[in-house]
Amino acid sequence: MVCSSFDTRLGSSSNKSRKKPLFFPLFPAQLGWGDLGVFGEPSKETPNLDQMASEGVLLPDFYTANPLCSPSRAALLTGRLPIRNGFYTTNGHARNAYTPQEIVGGIPDSEILLPELLKKAGYVNKIIGKWHLGHRPKYHPLKRGFDEWFGSPNCHFGPYNNKDLPNIPVYENWEMIGRYYEDFTIDRNTGESNLTQMYLQQAIAFITREKDPQQPFFLYWAIDATHSPIYASKPFLGTSRRGLYGDAVREIDYSVGKILEMLKQAGIAKNTFVFFTSDNGAALMSGPKQSGSNAPFLCGKETTFEGGMRVPGIAWWPGHVAAGQVSHQLGNIMDLFSTSLSLAGLQPPSDRAIDGIDLSAVIQEGKVMERPIFYYRGNELMAVRLGLYKAHYWTWSNSWEELSQGVDFCPGQNITGVTTHEQVEHTINPLLFHLGRDPGEKYPISVTSAEYQDAVSRISSVVRQHQDTMIPGEPQLNVCDPAVMNWSPPGCEKLGKCLKPPESKPWKCNWPH
Amino acid sequence: MVCSSFDTRLGSSSNKSRKKPLFFPLFPAQLGWGDLGVFGEPSKETPNLDQMASEGVLLPDFYTANPLCSPSRAALLTGRLPIRNGFYTTNGHARNAYTPQEIVGGIPDSEILLPELLKKAGYVNKIIGKWHLGHRPKYHPLKRGFDEWFGSPNCHFGPYNNKDLPNIPVYENWEMIGRYYEDFTIDRNTGESNLTQMYLQQAIAFITREKDPQQPFFLYWAIDATHSPIYASKPFLGTSRRGLYGDAVREIDYSVGKILEMLKQAGIAKNTFVFFTSDNGAALMSGPKQSGSNAPFLCGKETTFEGGMRVPGIAWWPGHVAAGQVSHQLGNIMDLFSTSLSLAGLQPPSDRAIDGIDLSAVIQEGKVMERPIFYYRGNELMAVRLGLYKAHYWTWSNSWEELSQGVDFCPGQNITGVTTHEQVEHTINPLLFHLGRDPGEKYPISVTSAEYQDAVSRISSVVRQHQDTMIPGEPQLNVCDPAVMNWSPPGCEKLGKCLKPPESKPWKCNWPH
Repeated sequence: MVCSSFDTRLGSSSNKSRKKPLFFPLFPAQLGWGDLGVFGEPSKETPNLDQMASEGVLLPDFYTANPLCSPSRAALLTGRLPIRNGFYTTNGHARNAYTPQEIVGGIPDSEILLPELLKKAGYVNKIIGKWHLGHRPKYHPLKRGFDEWFGSPNCHFGPYNNKDLPNIPVYENWEMIGRYYEDFTIDRNTGESNLTQMYLQQAIAFITREKDPQQPFFLYWAIDATHSPIYASKPFLGTSRRGLYGDAVREIDYSVGKILEMLKQAGIAKNTFVFFTSDNGAALMSGPKQSGSNAPFLCGKETTFEGGMRVPGIAWWPGHVAAGQVSHQLGNIMDLFSTSLSLAGLQPPSDRAIDGIDLSAVIQEGKVMERPIFYYRGNELMAVRLGLYKAHYWTWSNSWEELSQGVDFCPGQNITGVTTHEQVEHTINPLLFHLGRDPGEKYPISVTSAEYQDAVSRISSVVRQHQDTMIPGEPQLNVCDPAVMNWSPPGCEKLGKCLKPPESKPWKCNWPH
Repeated sequence: MVCSSFDTRLGSSSNKSRKKPLFFPLFPAQLGWGDLGVFGEPSKETPNLDQMASEGVLLPDFYTANPLCSPSRAALLTGRLPIRNGFYTTNGHARNAYTPQEIVGGIPDSEILLPELLKKAGYVNKIIGKWHLGHRPKYHPLKRGFDEWFGSPNCHFGPYNNKDLPNIPVYENWEMIGRYYEDFTIDRNTGESNLTQMYLQQAIAFITREKDPQQPFFLYWAIDATHSPIYASKPFLGTSRRGLYGDAVREIDYSVGKILEMLKQAGIAKNTFVFFTSDNGAALMSGPKQSGSNAPFLCGKETTFEGGMRVPGIAWWPGHVAAGQVSHQLGNIMDLFSTSLSLAGLQPPSDRAIDGIDLSAVIQEGKVMERPIFYYRGNELMAVRLGLYKAHYWTWSNSWEELSQGVDFCPGQNITGVTTHEQVEHTINPLLFHLGRDPGEKYPISVTSAEYQDAVSRISSVVRQHQDTMIPGEPQLNVCDPAVMNWSPPGCEKLGKCLKPPESKPWKCNWPH
């Protein structure tokens, strides 16, 4: 969730009538499109998100920039595709990569982050939750435009033994204040953890403190639920019809409701642009108790089928955004970079390609613009959507070897020739689907049809232009090293929680899919 | 859609303060659960149905009585499972059967129909659309409690050559007024047909005429869209993102909006109980241009997986039903029989088993009652749902032979051991699913778990009781005969449209799946 307040005072310096919105991205991890009642989850357990949609604009055609967490989060804050901002790997062809704690890389200094631009314009910026753009001190979010941080640099995997792997630290601003499973408990047996409640309290405290409409803020509520291992706090455990995963969704829904209520109570709802989305599609490989729903879409996280990258999109801004609207604008989380800058009256960087587009006219005036969606997996452009057509240039779910070990990104969904278990190239004749009448990507359109020829020729020209001008960034996710893990984060000495790092033994990270 | 107005005068004879509602079932053919925006259709093209839900009670756990059209429609009007009311076959084990025009049978005289009971209580009853409970004169709906009829006895398949098969007649009351493809055109090339508009105009004319709140009515709007061959009227053609199927859905949605608006304009909305549902899940075997969506549910029409029998359910009754409610009551179209009687202050027949339950307290007071859902395929009880658990005693999609010919009831969905292509019996250890965390019936619960033992023992006792007391009706769908087709329906002579029936050559109907 991105929440951003507008500042009357700052606005008046550039434009008398302009108020700068406070941005507020709500950004839970891998919550699926189909996990919201408004998008068809049968148990209808997200009344607050459904209400948010009914008060704002619902975007059923909203996408993440990558089927994986860190690259998406990097794309949100840079407005650029992971292949440009460096959040990808060249260790293998079309491999997903992210930032576990053995990763050496992080967000390059050369990238310009949204909070850096907003800070220059007088915004107070806070990140609550998972940073995920590099955990080494040089990548610390407070060096990248954020004024405050409460959360962790990596996923909450664990518990670890602090010998082979250290437990992931939780930071408050510059320093760690404890570690997951030690000071911030997650009960792997019951699924109980107070983390989402802590992130909610942090958000409420921040809003309460920064409610002066003269002071614009940018709050990036980048929580880690519903990422596995799934957790929820005690009052939510066992309350969902959907099991533990549903409990976590209900807690997120509750928290969003509380945050919006808080904005209303603080009298700044009309100054605050809030956006709810997710970093990738629901992960389907973990069975029903740990997996979300991508509703009618094919496959899930890790894939470039719709289920991997179509995510919920809800824009909320009472008084500025008409209630109960549905926009079929193709949107992308990178657009939140451009849209936020636009609403703040700022210009995006002009010295580099920006993939995000400004959605303010979409959200405020119902405008619809043609634009492509690029589906990358690592260093490969797998597919492109333009209008209602999607062309797959490469298809792959995962390898037969992984599948035989029970790792299935498309459980129960097998479309011959589509959900392939080998990397299959279709560059000559891309696999084409019409996502309006075939949202599940089940029925490739015949190569010999006029419809195919017309759609593919339009998409191919977009692809050519995209590829001809593409300058990939330096890949950040190629090198791993045990020495860079969270052994001794800043502040560890005060807590007696410093661990001795092993010798540096860099290796080429192995990305199996 | 069932629409029923309450009569103040009649009500006052039995109960001073009671008003009898006008019932109004809206009942399109095989519209899928996932075809409504409110249930997650990504194109969000059903604003009127979504609005209806927001003004009433949405029932995400609503079911049809059978995965096929005629048996479901028979169940709606009798309140009884097809195995009781005769709408099944014993020609093969667990075979779906319905009423094409070669069928000899129909709704038995021994069955008591909802309009028959309402008529005795002073209701004016009209059926608009597909009767489907027998096309021979003895089964005419005006002999079974309806005062008026505009529509056809069978599906709108065709065009036929009137030699091997006659085109299906359209009736106005007692007599035919033309035939499909001749007088009531359906363009198989463009998909254009005005049928839904005609059914809409019929409904509006009826409401306009019967708007006196002293006169209760029962309107059964049993339209044939979105059954294949799919059609829509010219203003809707090409307007949907979903292709022709979506055009038909948009026209249904528009029509429902018009009908509800008409009820409001006529000042009888508060006296009229309206229910929207469908006769079976979306048919998935016809490819993307002719198929609807069952959203997260497994398979479609013809099967006893959720996609075959979970259907939309929306109850609307301004002033009596609180707006914006979601009820997880397990409901069934047979409940509309019992609920309508209850709202009319009438008793259901006491001399026979009635499978429907009275949902009036569910809809008006938010009550939730435990009750099983029985999933029959022909003469076999395939599965039972109780609470959130569903136990499959038999699994079958269709035969390998049919599948090899391209007939697929579960396209792109293959759950090994679940969507079986042989009839597989699981009576000893039923396949158990938790529909809350696994709505797609992908992950059978382990037989050795305590959860399994507990759920199966509860369901098995319900099954035992059900089967021990089951008295199947005389099967109506066993015998076919070319002589019984719609050669010379009443009124044909006036139109010069009588055809000479061939000799009677009864045969045992072949039901392949």
